Amino acid sequence: MKSVWWEGGAVRLLDQTRLPHETVVRTCRTWREVADAIRRLQIRGAPAIGVAAAYGLALAAHEAGSGTTPLPRLRDIANSLGATRPTAVNLRWALTRMLAAAERVQNAAGIPEALRIEAEAIADGETRASALIAEHGVTLIHSGERILTYCNTGSLATVGVGTAYGILRRAHELGKGIHVIACETRPVLQGARLTAWELCRDGIPFTLITDNAAGSLMARGLVDRVVVGADRIARNGDVANKIGTYTLAVLARAHEIPFIVAAPTSTVDMHLADGSGILIEERAPDEVVRIGQHSIAPDGIRVSNPAFDVTPSQLVSAIVTDRGIATPPFGFTPETMAVPAARR
Amino acid sequence: MKSVWWEGGAVRLLDQTRLPHETVVRTCRTWREVADAIRRLQIRGAPAIGVAAAYGLALAAHEAGSGTTPLPRLRDIANSLGATRPTAVNLRWALTRMLAAAERVQNAAGIPEALRIEAEAIADGETRASALIAEHGVTLIHSGERILTYCNTGSLATVGVGTAYGILRRAHELGKGIHVIACETRPVLQGARLTAWELCRDGIPFTLITDNAAGSLMARGLVDRVVVGADRIARNGDVANKIGTYTLAVLARAHEIPFIVAAPTSTVDMHLADGSGILIEERAPDEVVRIGQHSIAPDGIRVSNPAFDVTPSQLVSAIVTDRGIATPPFGFTPETMAVPAARR
Repeated sequence: MKSVWWEGGAVRLLDQTRLPHETVVRTCRTWREVADAIRRLQIRGAPAIGVAAAYGLALAAHEAGSGTTPLPRLRDIANSLGATRPTAVNLRWALTRMLAAAERVQNAAGIPEALRIEAEAIADGETRASALIAEHGVTLIHSGERILTYCNTGSLATVGVGTAYGILRRAHELGKGIHVIACETRPVLQGARLTAWELCRDGIPFTLITDNAAGSLMARGLVDRVVVGADRIARNGDVANKIGTYTLAVLARAHEIPFIVAAPTSTVDMHLADGSGILIEERAPDEVVRIGQHSIAPDGIRVSNPAFDVTPSQLVSAIVTDRGIATPPFGFTPETMAVPAARR
Repeated sequence: MKSVWWEGGAVRLLDQTRLPHETVVRTCRTWREVADAIRRLQIRGAPAIGVAAAYGLALAAHEAGSGTTPLPRLRDIANSLGATRPTAVNLRWALTRMLAAAERVQNAAGIPEALRIEAEAIADGETRASALIAEHGVTLIHSGERILTYCNTGSLATVGVGTAYGILRRAHELGKGIHVIACETRPVLQGARLTAWELCRDGIPFTLITDNAAGSLMARGLVDRVVVGADRIARNGDVANKIGTYTLAVLARAHEIPFIVAAPTSTVDMHLADGSGILIEERAPDEVVRIGQHSIAPDGIRVSNPAFDVTPSQLVSAIVTDRGIATPPFGFTPETMAVPAARR
């Protein structure tokens, strides 16, 4: 099952807030519903929300019915869709591509269909990128490794086999005999709810841990490699990813464990020289103090809930993209991004 | 309200699994009920479970009614009480004191009363130790510091003002204008449920975070000091404490932030040269995969749930006990432990 797809003039997505215990598909008939689904994390993961936003804009073009949605209005809607999650750059990247496609259409009546086609092209491209990341990344994995991963980077977070998760899945398919250590990933528990669910479905051996147990496992020699995804990568290789990633990178360095980042090129922000300019989304306190219907803290307290952190490139051993494997010192340029496997 | 006390021939304790939303007192009329309460974490915290076990053994001596519980039987019961939690050394320390007190009684009929008196003496001693830790430790705290703490080390974890928490509370009382950053402390959430509850009651300004946000806060310069408790300290200063403590120590070192450990001398295990000999309790998977009645992961998966980790003394800036402040290189001996403030 895909994370998000176009069907019958609507955007359909697997509601990830209901997993692992319920499989519910949400049907969005307006772009506002797509924006709402992104905001609520019903669909999440940098590549997946880029594709969802693209479909959302295609939906906006179709919503005018027999009329046409004018380009300035589409630009406003793209801004609204882009603002749903500020950190992942894939949103902006996909919406920029979509607007460029709309601008290329000569007859305004053709915009809805052109946007649907462009959104499908973006989805197809991200599916191919996932597969390429897996093929490149699996060359880094040795037999029998115990690989720690974080958050969810599988087919739920993308529209293909995943980023970091895709590498793990490919290693398993190739019989490398890996064992995955999945961190639960507070507060939204994407590791416990989503990655564990995907690992079960794919039959990959794994152990679930609380995030705070990672350091102890590393100290006891039980972790051979860390592989994570990314929400935005600056040109110098600084990586914004789920809160807690930075802690894992510091721990990996302290224990001399390779720390690998995997992401499609759509996650590389060519406008950013380094990670200092990355806006970190602060999410609602309820994500921390309520789990399901269960309140875990006194009412009304002050909570800090940054959704992401920035790992400086000095702590990153390699960045795997659909173009190949980049190693330090990182320096993404339009040239290296354009040439397949340029830096392998 | 105390965490545990003797009342009307029974051991009463505040059921900490019901906090912060319900205040429920459990009355234990048999030592087996005390053991059960310790095992279920209804009472927890190294100093508090030492006192609870002492009261439990006193209860065992009273349970024989008009007869007397023979000493060999009391030794068996002490072993059972001591086995409820394997990591905190305070349990064994308190029970050893209790058995020695029983052995000193000449007329067996006097054992129940002698044990009740010894248990009260242990409780009083731990209350005094808490107060002394706070007085010594507060001298380390500078005005306006933002102090990160972990798990629960307050009056719920002890029978006094607490260990690490007692220092924070004293700093607040002295008008030092501190701000506490409380980590939620997965899986049992002692930080979110218990420390946040105590901070609210004491009116100390604080912010709750997920454990995995600590590194990011440190990187952003938002943490001035880390103060934590301990479940067992080896002679060389290696510290066993709640899982995740080691990760905080690695992060603190990477950011050059002082990392302070606070514990009564009953937590120092003079039998252990270093932390390699500390048995780490592995607790049930349900603690990780269920929060309240809410299941957060697929059923039947493999979970690793170590309750503690060991922080090597090289990462510890100071250890505050009721005797004073020890600084590296640590080397606890019967002499330094016996002399008040010997190492200040």
